[in-house]
Amino acid sequence: MKIIIVGGVAGGMSAATRLRRLMEDAEIVVFEKGPYVSFANCGLPYYVSGEIEEKEQLLVQTPESLNARFNLDVRPEHEVIAIDPDKRTVTVRYREETFIESYDKLILSPGAKPFIPAIEGIAEAKNVFPLRSVPDLENLIDCLAQKPKQAVVIGAGFIGLEMAENLKNRGLSVTIVEKAPHVLPPLDEEMAAFVQRELEKNRVRVLTSQSATAFKEQGKTIVLEDGTELTADVTILSVGVQPENQLAKSAGLALGLKGGIIVDENYRTSDKHIFAVGDAIIVKQQITGEDTMIALASPANRQGRQVADVIAGLPRRNQGSIGTAIVRTFALTAASTGLNERAAKQAGLSYQVIHTTGKDHAGYYPGATDVTLKMIFDPTTGEIYGAQGAGAKGVDKRIDILATMIKTKATIFDLPELELTYAPPFGSAKDPVNMLGYAAMNLAEGLSQSIQWHQLSEELAKGKILLDVRNPEEIAEGRFKTFISIPLSQLRERMAELDPHKQYIVSCHSGLRSYIAERILKQSGFQVENLDGAFSLYQVVKPEEIKYIEEKS
Amino acid sequence: MKIIIVGGVAGGMSAATRLRRLMEDAEIVVFEKGPYVSFANCGLPYYVSGEIEEKEQLLVQTPESLNARFNLDVRPEHEVIAIDPDKRTVTVRYREETFIESYDKLILSPGAKPFIPAIEGIAEAKNVFPLRSVPDLENLIDCLAQKPKQAVVIGAGFIGLEMAENLKNRGLSVTIVEKAPHVLPPLDEEMAAFVQRELEKNRVRVLTSQSATAFKEQGKTIVLEDGTELTADVTILSVGVQPENQLAKSAGLALGLKGGIIVDENYRTSDKHIFAVGDAIIVKQQITGEDTMIALASPANRQGRQVADVIAGLPRRNQGSIGTAIVRTFALTAASTGLNERAAKQAGLSYQVIHTTGKDHAGYYPGATDVTLKMIFDPTTGEIYGAQGAGAKGVDKRIDILATMIKTKATIFDLPELELTYAPPFGSAKDPVNMLGYAAMNLAEGLSQSIQWHQLSEELAKGKILLDVRNPEEIAEGRFKTFISIPLSQLRERMAELDPHKQYIVSCHSGLRSYIAERILKQSGFQVENLDGAFSLYQVVKPEEIKYIEEKS
Repeated sequence: MKIIIVGGVAGGMSAATRLRRLMEDAEIVVFEKGPYVSFANCGLPYYVSGEIEEKEQLLVQTPESLNARFNLDVRPEHEVIAIDPDKRTVTVRYREETFIESYDKLILSPGAKPFIPAIEGIAEAKNVFPLRSVPDLENLIDCLAQKPKQAVVIGAGFIGLEMAENLKNRGLSVTIVEKAPHVLPPLDEEMAAFVQRELEKNRVRVLTSQSATAFKEQGKTIVLEDGTELTADVTILSVGVQPENQLAKSAGLALGLKGGIIVDENYRTSDKHIFAVGDAIIVKQQITGEDTMIALASPANRQGRQVADVIAGLPRRNQGSIGTAIVRTFALTAASTGLNERAAKQAGLSYQVIHTTGKDHAGYYPGATDVTLKMIFDPTTGEIYGAQGAGAKGVDKRIDILATMIKTKATIFDLPELELTYAPPFGSAKDPVNMLGYAAMNLAEGLSQSIQWHQLSEELAKGKILLDVRNPEEIAEGRFKTFISIPLSQLRERMAELDPHKQYIVSCHSGLRSYIAERILKQSGFQVENLDGAFSLYQVVKPEEIKYIEEKS
Repeated sequence: MKIIIVGGVAGGMSAATRLRRLMEDAEIVVFEKGPYVSFANCGLPYYVSGEIEEKEQLLVQTPESLNARFNLDVRPEHEVIAIDPDKRTVTVRYREETFIESYDKLILSPGAKPFIPAIEGIAEAKNVFPLRSVPDLENLIDCLAQKPKQAVVIGAGFIGLEMAENLKNRGLSVTIVEKAPHVLPPLDEEMAAFVQRELEKNRVRVLTSQSATAFKEQGKTIVLEDGTELTADVTILSVGVQPENQLAKSAGLALGLKGGIIVDENYRTSDKHIFAVGDAIIVKQQITGEDTMIALASPANRQGRQVADVIAGLPRRNQGSIGTAIVRTFALTAASTGLNERAAKQAGLSYQVIHTTGKDHAGYYPGATDVTLKMIFDPTTGEIYGAQGAGAKGVDKRIDILATMIKTKATIFDLPELELTYAPPFGSAKDPVNMLGYAAMNLAEGLSQSIQWHQLSEELAKGKILLDVRNPEEIAEGRFKTFISIPLSQLRERMAELDPHKQYIVSCHSGLRSYIAERILKQSGFQVENLDGAFSLYQVVKPEEIKYIEEKS
């Protein structure tokens, strides 16, 4: 059998190597249009700062090593420019020549390409770089050799944030421009606010709800929607990707959502001899069952392996994706898995939201730091729709556990049951993930009612009263604009100060004490809701609403 | 309702605080026989080295703070010495007095006590300390103030290892004595070997298959089974625990395995008004369904909370435990979840074993270190029975993910599907946990056959040939005693050197290349097995079988 693979990175190369392990005698040819194969896309930003020192570290395999180990015919700089599905041939361009190759099976793993918006002057700009391939990186490095001072990063997604950090670490002054109302749009606003705070703490200028409308002076000046002009010695364009679908399209293969290649659950396209995997295909969002596109390395690698299994006759099917991603921005990690709150709302799901803050390891052991988790779930069935996390350490672990829960279709009722590793340097007897389950169950079972950070001002406007149960010293360091205060330890004795005809919202620092206060007051007949996430979340997402210095009376 | 709780640490205090949140008007009294409540047992070893600096850090709550926040009547130094189940009263001793208290519901959370073996001279030894409570710690600290030089730790379980590290970090010379054939008996031999190597690297003397038979000179000399005498200025005794069952026993409550308190799935003892939780109760091992005892903080905390729910009328039941534990020994982390291989064998399960070695994060990003994982699973159903891990970093995360898989009854076929956080500082596009799934599926689907490290010499004695496919430079650094060598990249062209009538065992460094070699050879008609875990595992568990210097010919 002769198998041709188009694209020699994650999905394509996983397919090629697995095929060889299953079919020693197959002829396997990999055409890659770029000069490198099997390179580590996700490492590109770290080469910019020098954190990854040698470009060779990013080149995981070479055509020579792949041939020696896997007997693969890997050809970089070979662009497949046409497919003839009837004849089962592809037309390949290599430098000046073109030639025709026949196949029995064809696997398309063309990936995604950076979305380049049609901004005025972008064609003339010499200092604007996407960052998707090693040649992109080489171009950027050449530009950085001129010692530019001002960098602009357009797009504050995962790559944009990594680039902002790495350019800053290289010594440039960095401005990041994001069209959405907040950075890191895959996360919800309040969780992304942790990232924005970290960027600003590291003196990256953050402009949200803004986009570039023109490049002037060959890119030296960027004009934003509101007329602001930014000076840019170098600009990174990271506003998203789109499927590389030209080849599939001209071959007449069926395309769907956003031009993605339609495949069945065995990765077969509308032509039965042509398969496709990776960033260019449409997959099912596992939770909603809806079509989606996910440009991430992990699913691409899995799909590549699975399509090889399918071609070799092993039973395998694409079970869909939930989408899990993580980014480190300076000292902060932010991650998400499954649906965010916007997606849950759009999908018309009945959901509740919870935020908790715990420590990455036992609080009594040195170096413990906060991990803030958000979970979106169905309070009736307990299904977990999605989760997000932010913190200095241990976020990857908690989101991985929650991703595992979602993938295995476990529920919030299973979270407290998880027996996780606990010794002081690693966790707590009740891990933040267990606590998330307890808190969600308290909502699901009606022990607690909560309101969200974005509802606070409107609820107060209705006449509800915010009761802060923190201690006076904590309140002195930062407080809500309008509230009354009774420390939790005095609540039982001072309950007479509260009006049984009023409705109360309770808050503390992280939500633990306010929940206790809620239970005390509820059981004494008061109408109470808990401010989910409490002061610690509110101050991050609504810093303008917080008074930070105690005004003496 | 009046609820009395016996024991004011993990299980008891979780029950008390949850009860208060559910039953504001209940009278809740906690009797703790020791001087402290709600202390962090698991932190005790770290106070010995000064890593945790203040003893107060270990005291999570005090009776005063618990009263202020939870309106609990918490009484340290109060020992419950008798229960009258008919009258529903307990007899309590406080210093010189005894008094009687009545209850509606009684919760026993007495915990476990250190097992003190009947060794000759132990009563006279003044320098032998268990480490289970804050007073134990205080006694040890007093002894350490005399600046002892030689420490002996008897028992190389989790606490023993933590004590060995912390005493060494305090500057003592440390010998650790373990009765089992290897340190860390909850793990299997080859995984525990990583810990032994780390101990020895840090100049802790390790004596296995050894136990103390006598203490001489008030404990200054310890005599071992084989007559060896150890000098001990201070000795830590950490040879396991047994349930504190005296009170339950004398009250006539039903006891079971090893004297543990028998409870139903609602934590009810044989008396319907008396409940029990924590280290003293018998629980179901979730995987085998057999009775077991698990002395760990996480289950105790969960059980405490659940028994409160049961008493308050919420539906809750003990779903059993899988047992997950972790220990850091100097720079190495070792962890386990579920059944180890010995337990799987004892339970008569049909299982297979797999070892993989991957990196804690992307190999191309600085600071990546090895994570070695072992998994025990049913190759037919794919059920995961247990997992173990060893490495410098990232072991907690992988074992937590696998513990989650076991708890949610997911299978090896689900492991490749997991979508875990991937960015260079956190993981790889194919996480070690995904790889474990791929490797297990290769076995389950018959693509690979493996032999274990402990089978190698007997298989070679049968006439099989060990083929090492590493490169000559790697082999020069350390090699098997008997083997032939063909580097993987030359295997296809040099296949004629192999005898199709012989049986081969292939190995490389970590098992990746040997699997590729296995597939090449199998598809060419050879009889091949893969040495699971390959050279990297073998050299750790069988260092005496390895030649480390290339002998020049």
